Amino acid sequence: MEEIDPLERLVENFKTLPGVGQKTAQRYAYSIISRDEEGANEFANSIISAKKKIKYCSECGNYTDKDVCKICSTRSGDIICVVKEPKDVSAMEKVRAYNGLYHVLHGTINPLENRGPNDIRIKELLERVSKLGTKEVIMATNPDVEGEATAMYVAKLLKPLGVKVSRLAQGMSMGSELEYADEVTLTKALEKRSMM
Amino acid sequence: MEEIDPLERLVENFKTLPGVGQKTAQRYAYSIISRDEEGANEFANSIISAKKKIKYCSECGNYTDKDVCKICSTRSGDIICVVKEPKDVSAMEKVRAYNGLYHVLHGTINPLENRGPNDIRIKELLERVSKLGTKEVIMATNPDVEGEATAMYVAKLLKPLGVKVSRLAQGMSMGSELEYADEVTLTKALEKRSMM
Repeated sequence: MEEIDPLERLVENFKTLPGVGQKTAQRYAYSIISRDEEGANEFANSIISAKKKIKYCSECGNYTDKDVCKICSTRSGDIICVVKEPKDVSAMEKVRAYNGLYHVLHGTINPLENRGPNDIRIKELLERVSKLGTKEVIMATNPDVEGEATAMYVAKLLKPLGVKVSRLAQGMSMGSELEYADEVTLTKALEKRSMM
Repeated sequence: MEEIDPLERLVENFKTLPGVGQKTAQRYAYSIISRDEEGANEFANSIISAKKKIKYCSECGNYTDKDVCKICSTRSGDIICVVKEPKDVSAMEKVRAYNGLYHVLHGTINPLENRGPNDIRIKELLERVSKLGTKEVIMATNPDVEGEATAMYVAKLLKPLGVKVSRLAQGMSMGSELEYADEVTLTKALEKRSMM
């Protein structure tokens, strides 16, 4: 440990964050160094604590520190919004109009990357829909090729169960990502969702 | 601790970094959560270790994990480059042409913020210059009002000691900050430094 410069090590770690290069990592590192010890420890401990305590909700697959997340344990199962990743749940939660459940697929069907229907949480979705007596499933996967294909695939499996399946309106531009959509666009897309 | 959501706590900590808002903090937090435990711990430990081990070099005032930093313990004292903050040393170090020492003032003279000459490391600079027999001091404080005033003030104290005092050429635009200058601009500014 004597050989690695602690500051350099910190910079290297910041560089592992998405979109962070040398200069930004250095700014972050200097910001840490200039804090008091308590402040730096709080930062470090929040990382350790989050990694230790955060796991997947046994119901929806979103991140939570409980066995069943707050959303799953308090909301009605009439509507389920299906997303690709946990971060998409935060994006959808900004739409105050939405009060239903979520289901995180943890990926999309992508033959090029060898990900088939059994590699994402589709089976779990079908089970939840049956168990909860869900009336509508909103497919909110990204409006790109894999997202569309996954939505179509899941819709085909759900319709025979007598469930309405809708898709977020294509107010969102093709090729964009749910994570970066602004609230107005998302609200509109939710309002104008079309039946599949 | 049960009441604070560990993910929210992590996001809040990331938001304390310079220039990081809610969305970026969330992206960073998700990036941490998606790592294995070892990866997350390495990140946290690099913060703790840097904060614990990094202190000021007893000579130049830059960050180091030694008593005297690597630059001070290996280079000649013929030239000293005076900067405002530790991060400015990293900026200057990109200029391969420079092989002298540094002196970090830890601030600039700023009457509006009640910072006078005795609140920054000017006395220590004069002592080093005498002790090392320094031939030239390059004033590389930022090209803004406080940086200029500080450079003028220090120059007046150094000249009676028979030391050449120079200033980075104003190839840098007024009001900009050393930290963000590109290497070409910095190299030129160093080359064309003017006597004070």
